[in-house]
Amino acid sequence: MTTLDDCQALDARDSLRPLRDLFVLPSGVIYLDGNSLGPLPKTAAARVSQVVTDEWGRGLIRSWNEAGWFTLPARVGDKIARLIGACAGEVVATDSTSINLYKVLSAALSIAAADTPLRREVVSERSNFPTDLYIMDALCRERRRDLHLVKHEDVTAALTPQTAVLALTHVNYRTGAMHDMAAVTAAAHDAGALMVWDLAHSAGAMAVDVHTVGADFAVGCGYKYLNGGPGAPAFVWVHPRHADRFWQPLAGWWGHAAPFQFAPDYRPAAGIARYLCGTPPVISLAALECGVDTVLAAESFGGLSALREKSVALTELFTLLVDERCAGHGLQVVSPRDAASRGSQVCLTRVDAASPHHSGGYAIVQALIARGVIGDFRAGDDGDHPDILRFGFAPLYIRFEDVWQAVEQLRQVLESGEWRRDEFARVHAVT
Amino acid sequence: MTTLDDCQALDARDSLRPLRDLFVLPSGVIYLDGNSLGPLPKTAAARVSQVVTDEWGRGLIRSWNEAGWFTLPARVGDKIARLIGACAGEVVATDSTSINLYKVLSAALSIAAADTPLRREVVSERSNFPTDLYIMDALCRERRRDLHLVKHEDVTAALTPQTAVLALTHVNYRTGAMHDMAAVTAAAHDAGALMVWDLAHSAGAMAVDVHTVGADFAVGCGYKYLNGGPGAPAFVWVHPRHADRFWQPLAGWWGHAAPFQFAPDYRPAAGIARYLCGTPPVISLAALECGVDTVLAAESFGGLSALREKSVALTELFTLLVDERCAGHGLQVVSPRDAASRGSQVCLTRVDAASPHHSGGYAIVQALIARGVIGDFRAGDDGDHPDILRFGFAPLYIRFEDVWQAVEQLRQVLESGEWRRDEFARVHAVT
Repeated sequence: MTTLDDCQALDARDSLRPLRDLFVLPSGVIYLDGNSLGPLPKTAAARVSQVVTDEWGRGLIRSWNEAGWFTLPARVGDKIARLIGACAGEVVATDSTSINLYKVLSAALSIAAADTPLRREVVSERSNFPTDLYIMDALCRERRRDLHLVKHEDVTAALTPQTAVLALTHVNYRTGAMHDMAAVTAAAHDAGALMVWDLAHSAGAMAVDVHTVGADFAVGCGYKYLNGGPGAPAFVWVHPRHADRFWQPLAGWWGHAAPFQFAPDYRPAAGIARYLCGTPPVISLAALECGVDTVLAAESFGGLSALREKSVALTELFTLLVDERCAGHGLQVVSPRDAASRGSQVCLTRVDAASPHHSGGYAIVQALIARGVIGDFRAGDDGDHPDILRFGFAPLYIRFEDVWQAVEQLRQVLESGEWRRDEFARVHAVT
Repeated sequence: MTTLDDCQALDARDSLRPLRDLFVLPSGVIYLDGNSLGPLPKTAAARVSQVVTDEWGRGLIRSWNEAGWFTLPARVGDKIARLIGACAGEVVATDSTSINLYKVLSAALSIAAADTPLRREVVSERSNFPTDLYIMDALCRERRRDLHLVKHEDVTAALTPQTAVLALTHVNYRTGAMHDMAAVTAAAHDAGALMVWDLAHSAGAMAVDVHTVGADFAVGCGYKYLNGGPGAPAFVWVHPRHADRFWQPLAGWWGHAAPFQFAPDYRPAAGIARYLCGTPPVISLAALECGVDTVLAAESFGGLSALREKSVALTELFTLLVDERCAGHGLQVVSPRDAASRGSQVCLTRVDAASPHHSGGYAIVQALIARGVIGDFRAGDDGDHPDILRFGFAPLYIRFEDVWQAVEQLRQVLESGEWRRDEFARVHAVT
């Protein structure tokens, strides 16, 4: 059996351990929800205060130039580029993941329409994050294309001579199942399709390398593993071979070649800058930069590859401890057991033979939160999925000891039966 | 001749005068650029700090519910609704003006395609803010519609049986020329067209009443007269008669009827909520709420109608003082002389008979900024417009005395000829 001492010994050997000090982590909390909202970097409060009080308050309009607000989307984008294997000048931080996906899918469909006009289909994964599916569906309706949704394991088999674009999320938000980016991208290209990746659940938790895998487009989220704060702007990357071919439906003035000429005709900026649209939310962007800096700090502590190594070790440990210490309570691991096919999260479900429709997942998560172990719950309301207890293990700040303590709390919640109390019952009014 | 005493007397009688205390205004600065970026509300630094340190830092993911982040776009939207004559539940604060315009124009074109399919044209004003033109152009290409751009004074004459949508900005960003919203909307409807308003340069500077004028759609900016901070989220209003007919191309999960069911199929929320797309930038939204509150504060000091009264008095005074005190230096008032046709700004241009291509507008604005009078310059690079010296008069915090001092500084800049110094020359590298 694995012991707390074993876990503490792992922490003692962890090269990334100093990075935990970059964050404000409330005492009494084990935070396993950084895959939904990363914690506050210690630098962010002062930086945001500087933007508000000094740059906005004192600098006023002058700060667009003097405080570098104009270049913020590109500057933060350049930093994110280092996390995803892109080059400087290829990424901007702007808008939301949903809107950035709309841009890149628009671009991909326009390019496909020009290069492979007989291909009329977008392929994706049915269990993709819903906003990705909604945006794809809307754009396919608009462009009169077909959206073909398949199971996670069938995405490459679904590629046909009709496929214009394969659009996937690297790590599944529910299950943590991870695609092999290189293999899937190669399969898409072999089939003559363009490849769009959503890195929302991988960028910042592991080194991603969009150039090495040969991707065409990528978007991702600023507020999960990038620790950019609630609703932080997202990012968008486009391979340089495509960037200047984009005909931009969201043709706002920030994507113009010379926005301050106020010309009546749209003339897109060169490269990724044309993927900007309206004025970006500067305060939120400044906080995002602090978050991105926390991930970049790993470059000095073993490099980004160390993030993935630790992430795998954390999820392996959690799975092992759940097996060892929580047996007999109906828990099952939903995430892939093979670490190579798993992102930085582990999802459980609880099967109750006596009452399959009330498996207790929501109540168990609530009881854990009451004990300071914060994960989250994702309902299987659609009938295709089980209810999920979701636990994210961000390698920047989660300790092996935290994993032990989290499983210990889970064990106590299950053994005590406290999760069956009324206070933890699911409020079905939540929609 | 008008004297400083006269101006101070006007301040003494100004019912809105206490509202200036709601802002951080740097000493030594007369800020006539609130039409580009409103100043910092005194409440904003503490509120933003609370969001960052307490809600994000301590509350973490729990703050989506416990700190009301989920309802922030609607809550701020309800406040903005009071400024534009809309009802609670009809406005959301989200995304940028450009993106919100894309949404409402998409909706308007979809509605027109269903109701008046033979109408294939969008009419707008050639001197509209460029991002509005770019978005219209992009969407017209996408939907195979024609964009017909005309002069400010010709917009109603341009309405024909082909017109599907008339899309205008209420107050022109360059000249300050203001459309009669009621008359123009009525003309659009008489011609069988839908009416889209961009309120970027009017909401917050005057009472706008979208229901009374019978508008169909409106968008507007959070960071100008709403004082929401750099790049603050924008707002969008849709008349209830249209809201549920919208087929949304930017169909992100925040616009779903039940986003936390994570259903694979998009089912739009009822009403304005379907105009949300991705996760909004919470920190910037919280700052926006502080800004909106500064405008709502006018409700207790004479009401929103007092904003317009003071705004007119400020712009009248500025025009009068420029006429009286700056004569003989080639300045001309570009904004309409008739206050009823003018927003809350006054634009000047300088004509130099000796050197018509170097009229000095940029240098004069720079020399004024060096003296603490902050306006801005908008080049007439397109050949259709003169170079403009632009001065905004936000009635919440600009004093009549400020107007006098601004013109006095302008007079000194002109009479001393200091604007001709090299340090104020235009840097043509700026794009």
